[in-house]
Amino acid sequence: MVEGEGEKDMKVGIVGLGLIGGSLARRLVKNGTSVVAWNHRPHPYEQAQADGIACVDSLAALVDAQPDVIVLCNPLKTMASIAQELQPLLAKHSAITLTDVGSVKGEVREQMQQAGLVECYVGAHPMAGNELSGWDAADPALFDGALWAVTVDDATDRQRFETVARLITEQSGNELIVLDDATHDRAASLISHMPHVVSTALVNELVDDDQRNIAAALAAGSWRDMTRVALTNPERTKAMVDEDAANVEQHLRSIAKRLEDVADQLRDGKDVTPFFTAAEPFRAYKAADSKNGEVSTLELPEDGWQQVLLDSASRGEVVTGLDADGNAAILKCPAM
Amino acid sequence: MVEGEGEKDMKVGIVGLGLIGGSLARRLVKNGTSVVAWNHRPHPYEQAQADGIACVDSLAALVDAQPDVIVLCNPLKTMASIAQELQPLLAKHSAITLTDVGSVKGEVREQMQQAGLVECYVGAHPMAGNELSGWDAADPALFDGALWAVTVDDATDRQRFETVARLITEQSGNELIVLDDATHDRAASLISHMPHVVSTALVNELVDDDQRNIAAALAAGSWRDMTRVALTNPERTKAMVDEDAANVEQHLRSIAKRLEDVADQLRDGKDVTPFFTAAEPFRAYKAADSKNGEVSTLELPEDGWQQVLLDSASRGEVVTGLDADGNAAILKCPAM
Repeated sequence: MVEGEGEKDMKVGIVGLGLIGGSLARRLVKNGTSVVAWNHRPHPYEQAQADGIACVDSLAALVDAQPDVIVLCNPLKTMASIAQELQPLLAKHSAITLTDVGSVKGEVREQMQQAGLVECYVGAHPMAGNELSGWDAADPALFDGALWAVTVDDATDRQRFETVARLITEQSGNELIVLDDATHDRAASLISHMPHVVSTALVNELVDDDQRNIAAALAAGSWRDMTRVALTNPERTKAMVDEDAANVEQHLRSIAKRLEDVADQLRDGKDVTPFFTAAEPFRAYKAADSKNGEVSTLELPEDGWQQVLLDSASRGEVVTGLDADGNAAILKCPAM
Repeated sequence: MVEGEGEKDMKVGIVGLGLIGGSLARRLVKNGTSVVAWNHRPHPYEQAQADGIACVDSLAALVDAQPDVIVLCNPLKTMASIAQELQPLLAKHSAITLTDVGSVKGEVREQMQQAGLVECYVGAHPMAGNELSGWDAADPALFDGALWAVTVDDATDRQRFETVARLITEQSGNELIVLDDATHDRAASLISHMPHVVSTALVNELVDDDQRNIAAALAAGSWRDMTRVALTNPERTKAMVDEDAANVEQHLRSIAKRLEDVADQLRDGKDVTPFFTAAEPFRAYKAADSKNGEVSTLELPEDGWQQVLLDSASRGEVVTGLDADGNAAILKCPAM
């Protein structure tokens, strides 16, 4: 939240009280935000209501509660059918903004387009999660320090963007960066979806080895760290990879090429020092003090505000809030 | 240590008081073992002597102290010259057994062969270490719970093997598995050397990306875990990979092929479920309770004791000690 700015009262609708939706709902209520929620099964309702979350028994009732913004926290595979059900309801309440928390953004925007909801839509993806799932694992602290990616395109409505940005910064107390869908989905493939495949490939190499028990006995910290993500929820990982398939395919081919290149160098007795030296900018980035950033104001023009925010993210800046004029408070972070 | 067996007094010579040699020397002294040490520079001597480690100023003096076993804890690149210097000294003290702690075993045995020292040599590699180096980082606790690989061949002397095995189990309080050099070096490539290259390849993919600051901002737990080993000491990693080049080359090609296969499946819209399911045996192995093992005695024949111990390691068993007759106490661990 920008210092000196008063919080605007906001009512937030949550669709889906699983790990992410439940954690966000509980966090928002804790921060004094009014929250109304619908879940496809009512089993979390008793606990949720005790926490101060108003639970309703249909999407129609959720819309009738007239929240400022509805956050779709349902699984990606149910997105199309929920969007279809929401469309006629939102047609009568056009002030409501729609956002989501899905880990792939291009596909969700397409579904909103198909359902005729794209005018009220702003994409979002909080970098929060763990290996658990469901309401029982929901925890307001899951969002502590979480960065959100907010995804926009040229047609995104400025006021609706501001609503989602204030939800994130003022109501949830988090920071954000603004991206287009393609940049988001490519970056998510690079730092998460593709590495999950690599981790599983390492495990499969071990499993297929005749001396797998010996190799496993010798395994220490490097192996444990690199295979941890291969241990948890293969169905979820598989779905994540499928949803971002084109980017993951490209990144897998690029990594495979890098590994083949090192293999060639080792075969030819060449010096592999440059391969290891090439990682130096990331080592310096990790060693930099992330607390050393300065906060400043980034003016957002009426036209082209999307690109101004995208350029800011490319420079390694994050948005910590919006001021009364809708300009962004940004924090300069270490960059490569 | 096998219960009911008394500890045999042992004097251990240590060459090199770096992270591993220093930690082992301090651990052995703490456990009541007599330790004499030589380092190529005397800077750790004051602290080492205060810890109860007898420090000498030459390899000749180390041999003259007549330890039961000398543990070579010097870097691999100095192994050949130290072996050459030791050869005439050990010729006069043939009762002394020679071992080492190098992370690659085939190359060390070759150097011992070339120096004419292979008759008194038994290979060893403790699975202990961290990202630090040098005497200042030496810590007896570094070996807590460490498994040692002991490497032998058909010509390895049974008594010398027992000396090294008792050093590990009775003096250092650790467990061991017995391997041949090739099996060790291949397994070490699979679970450590190759994954270090993969980790660095991931970082290089990020560094080369136009939107590296955005990708780095979105990075969470999976990325952090998979790139941790790429952050520490690239020179040491490079040396490790070079020393085990043939195995690392083969493993890199195999992983690259696995990644290309998944990329093909994603391109062709095929189901990638089998790829993720293939890791299931390792998931079950990690979920198994490692404390559930039973201890039993493995009889070691005069001839072929090496193969009996290698087969035991393949079954996922570890050696916890030797009894008075030289038979092995083994612990059955979870296996795949």
